[in-house]
Amino acid sequence: MKTIEKIEALSQIKSGLYKKDFLLTWEKSEKDLRIILEVAGILRDLRAQNISPRVFDSGLAISNFRDNSTRTRFSFASASNMLGLAVQDLDEEKSQIAHGETVRETANMISFMSDFIGIRDDMFLGEGNKYMREVGEALDEGFEKGVLPVRPGIVNLQCDIDHPTQSMADLMHLQTQFGSLENLKGKKIVMSWAYSPSYGKPLSVPQGIIGLMSRFGMNIELAYPEGYGLIPEVIEIAQKNAKQSGGFLNINHSMSDAMKNADIVYPKSWAPFHIMQQRTELLKKADKAGLKELEQICLANNAKFKNWEYDATKMKVTKNQDALYMHCLPADISNVSCKEGEVNGDVFEKYRIKTYLEAGFKPYVISAMMFTNRFEKPAEVLKNILDRNRKRVGF
Amino acid sequence: MKTIEKIEALSQIKSGLYKKDFLLTWEKSEKDLRIILEVAGILRDLRAQNISPRVFDSGLAISNFRDNSTRTRFSFASASNMLGLAVQDLDEEKSQIAHGETVRETANMISFMSDFIGIRDDMFLGEGNKYMREVGEALDEGFEKGVLPVRPGIVNLQCDIDHPTQSMADLMHLQTQFGSLENLKGKKIVMSWAYSPSYGKPLSVPQGIIGLMSRFGMNIELAYPEGYGLIPEVIEIAQKNAKQSGGFLNINHSMSDAMKNADIVYPKSWAPFHIMQQRTELLKKADKAGLKELEQICLANNAKFKNWEYDATKMKVTKNQDALYMHCLPADISNVSCKEGEVNGDVFEKYRIKTYLEAGFKPYVISAMMFTNRFEKPAEVLKNILDRNRKRVGF
Amino acid sequence: MKTIEKIEALSQIKSGLYKKDFLLTWEKSEKDLRIILEVAGILRDLRAQNISPRVFDSGLAISNFRDNSTRTRFSFASASNMLGLAVQDLDEEKSQIAHGETVRETANMISFMSDFIGIRDDMFLGEGNKYMREVGEALDEGFEKGVLPVRPGIVNLQCDIDHPTQSMADLMHLQTQFGSLENLKGKKIVMSWAYSPSYGKPLSVPQGIIGLMSRFGMNIELAYPEGYGLIPEVIEIAQKNAKQSGGFLNINHSMSDAMKNADIVYPKSWAPFHIMQQRTELLKKADKAGLKELEQICLANNAKFKNWEYDATKMKVTKNQDALYMHCLPADISNVSCKEGEVNGDVFEKYRIKTYLEAGFKPYVISAMMFTNRFEKPAEVLKNILDRNRKRVGF
Repeated sequence: MKTIEKIEALSQIKSGLYKKDFLLTWEKSEKDLRIILEVAGILRDLRAQNISPRVFDSGLAISNFRDNSTRTRFSFASASNMLGLAVQDLDEEKSQIAHGETVRETANMISFMSDFIGIRDDMFLGEGNKYMREVGEALDEGFEKGVLPVRPGIVNLQCDIDHPTQSMADLMHLQTQFGSLENLKGKKIVMSWAYSPSYGKPLSVPQGIIGLMSRFGMNIELAYPEGYGLIPEVIEIAQKNAKQSGGFLNINHSMSDAMKNADIVYPKSWAPFHIMQQRTELLKKADKAGLKELEQICLANNAKFKNWEYDATKMKVTKNQDALYMHCLPADISNVSCKEGEVNGDVFEKYRIKTYLEAGFKPYVISAMMFTNRFEKPAEVLKNILDRNRKRVGF
Repeated sequence: MKTIEKIEALSQIKSGLYKKDFLLTWEKSEKDLRIILEVAGILRDLRAQNISPRVFDSGLAISNFRDNSTRTRFSFASASNMLGLAVQDLDEEKSQIAHGETVRETANMISFMSDFIGIRDDMFLGEGNKYMREVGEALDEGFEKGVLPVRPGIVNLQCDIDHPTQSMADLMHLQTQFGSLENLKGKKIVMSWAYSPSYGKPLSVPQGIIGLMSRFGMNIELAYPEGYGLIPEVIEIAQKNAKQSGGFLNINHSMSDAMKNADIVYPKSWAPFHIMQQRTELLKKADKAGLKELEQICLANNAKFKNWEYDATKMKVTKNQDALYMHCLPADISNVSCKEGEVNGDVFEKYRIKTYLEAGFKPYVISAMMFTNRFEKPAEVLKNILDRNRKRVGF
Repeated sequence: MKTIEKIEALSQIKSGLYKKDFLLTWEKSEKDLRIILEVAGILRDLRAQNISPRVFDSGLAISNFRDNSTRTRFSFASASNMLGLAVQDLDEEKSQIAHGETVRETANMISFMSDFIGIRDDMFLGEGNKYMREVGEALDEGFEKGVLPVRPGIVNLQCDIDHPTQSMADLMHLQTQFGSLENLKGKKIVMSWAYSPSYGKPLSVPQGIIGLMSRFGMNIELAYPEGYGLIPEVIEIAQKNAKQSGGFLNINHSMSDAMKNADIVYPKSWAPFHIMQQRTELLKKADKAGLKELEQICLANNAKFKNWEYDATKMKVTKNQDALYMHCLPADISNVSCKEGEVNGDVFEKYRIKTYLEAGFKPYVISAMMFTNRFEKPAEVLKNILDRNRKRVGF
């Protein structure tokens, strides 16, 4: 479809995203999720046509990474830059935040000229998403009271519950691979635990995947060894979503059974929910000995499930022996990035470029989240961008 | 007043700020300080009208924070971005500066494409402001000898003597709260020491406040427990200023007496001058044991003055029981950010939003310092910006 | 010459730089090296005329500094900013790269919206340049497979073999000092080892200098105490270059002999090749004790050659007693930045401003590398920039 036709189609849908933070996909209507994908797709088209979508002459996008990040950091930087915003990092080690400053105050202090705040806070169960909402409330107050000329939008760059920029990029990848969102109906996706020699990986990716893919009529097998459960409330939400969209969510403790006839597999290690709860308590108390002990217990337990590795033999039971392999990267690849891991080197290599393509949607998804937060009628602004036809590079 | 009228009024005043570093407020004429406030106000108006004041198509603003900062860091980033400059941080840990490189050389090496250098250097008494001047001399030489195509302007983002971006933002807050600079004449402001459970806080805020507010006919009570004096030369300057502007500066060792009928109170902890002198010597020698010992002595001494806390009862003696509470933030708030601190939770909460508003002037003040450094006739350029009417966001 | 005439002259030369990484000067034709200098010179002219050469409306330039840097970091930031790109730093400590991620993957993950990647990797002999090529291959694959919309160009910001942004800036300095590249023919340059109280300094600067200056008919004396040799392959390349361009490269173990009648001296400490080989092995094994021991041996050996210091007396044997002193900075200056070093304080001071001028060419050289990588016909784009006449500052 031509870009102008996509914009025309987009103009027919009324957006509910204006001035709303993006914190959890399940707080957004299906229509709004589609709008994000449409805007992301149009921005991608524009890039390919060397048309600059710059809508900010100046402005700041604040990034607050409370955990390590490469992919998401660069995606956020790219998304911000594309729209004309400069990234300013809130480095809590370099700031005075550690000196007892409240969230409320800091949120305002960094926002006098900010248009967006991207936050990653995924280490403490029950904390990350809560922190984002606290920031949001502080910004609401600051804006209402005239402290802030603009209410900056918040983009969740991964919390303890969801990882919406990842899951939306994954959805966009599926849309591209299968031709349309409609084609995803009835497709079988296995969101699977897999073995990793590390421990304490967040739950937000599997939770994000089941919470989002359940919106589009997919049949989800959530596969993990007993004891590796996710946050129960998220399971419930995903099951409710699945019912509404005409799919299902099944919990399966047999990897091979889950994989039978699967269209898509997403093998990814995570820590059990109850371990993350204990870990959160230990982290809060900064109990290093306790953390070390928990790590040992957890690694020993993980080691019982080294057979939860996706290899070519196991992949044979999938649809046409060729299910689409997905990963948020970096994967733990056996004999590549570790001795034994989530996925076998051959399987990974076969789908490697596809995982790169998958990751490549993230900058556009983040841009689209920002764009729809800031413009009530995104199609109108996109039409103006197309008409302006300003080159991104050169003359 | 309409923006165009403000610009018109501004055009009547001849600026002395062109190509001058901003290092100490008392080196600037009262007229020039007014120009800064006017330009800052106009830039604020433009923001509210979604008009971009971008005057740089490209260029760098270097930040050199030799001490922690959140507020000022973000203010500097905002100010730079607003005008079209990208911030480049000089992180002395990541650079080769530690390898014996001279100030003179580094100043030139970072400045080939720089338009401004913002420096925070507030730890060593007798050093910070001196360092800024050394940088300035190196830049002068580099520019004269053809090394630098432009002589970057220096903005003091806090030194050992003054904190002009803070005090000017504070002045702009007072101007807004009391209606005009003229209305500040005869108003009583208490710049007061207050108890804090930490030690070694710089003197630059209280010094900056008495050095600046004394220019506008205010009656200043500088209140502190005996032994907590500021740099004597700054006291002298403030007293001279006060005499010239028709106000006074009184040193008072009774908090309650100082507060009587006060229009404004600014309770803020600082370390005694003589302690900062000892601390500077110990820091230079990197004498950790000595620093630890000095901290203990100092904290023990501080603890004698826990009653120097601003609470609702004490505030009753102020004008209409309602003096304006000010702070540069973050404040040490009793039972909020610490057990016992500079200010009681109730008093702080009552003025909390006002302290945010106070902080919100800083980005505009810094922009104005840059703007007037770079343009000989700021009103003319502002008029052009208004006429150009380029939107900051959207079409 | 007027800028328009320079552009006209440039338009006569067909560039071979389009879409090519800049990794080693000896991989570039002499004609292409001249194009870099011409473009750099024109960009410098434009700056002086307050004309903005911005050719990117948005875009990222990634910097990946695997070793400390001030000068090159700021030069890269300046070059990027000048053309309209925002710098995004790949800080490998803050990223997940340490967690077993492959070069191939990371190269793609940071490049979805990137136009350039600048890399410094100079610590491990046999590694830095190799790493850059691995990144390049990954980018090639990503671009071919549709992962990347643009193939980002790579700029070598110093590797184990060459330091092309430095040597090209040095060449531009010589061009300016001697009037033209043609005038360099037959000039005698001494690339000399010099004493330093530190150890382990990379070989890339002397190697870069002999590899580049040998292209322009210069007579090179490579002077060092026995045992302080460079990578043999680079020596060979430089000797071949020299022969082709009508100059020569002579290895000399007598400093005073090498300096006789020299037009230019470039005294700079480096570690012996065989020591760097041992050091690389120890670094790979993270053998701290071994590194400490090697340092002691090396420093003790260095100490035998403290007389390799450039002072006024030694300079007397140079052409007119006034050879041009060059350095990449920071220099180890006796009694200034160290007790005993590469150069005497008097000699350094005499040429200090010239070393600053020398360094000042680097941002333009890097811009030119980017510019010619991105535009097939740089003269045409430069002509458009001149015609557009957009001001960098103001109206």
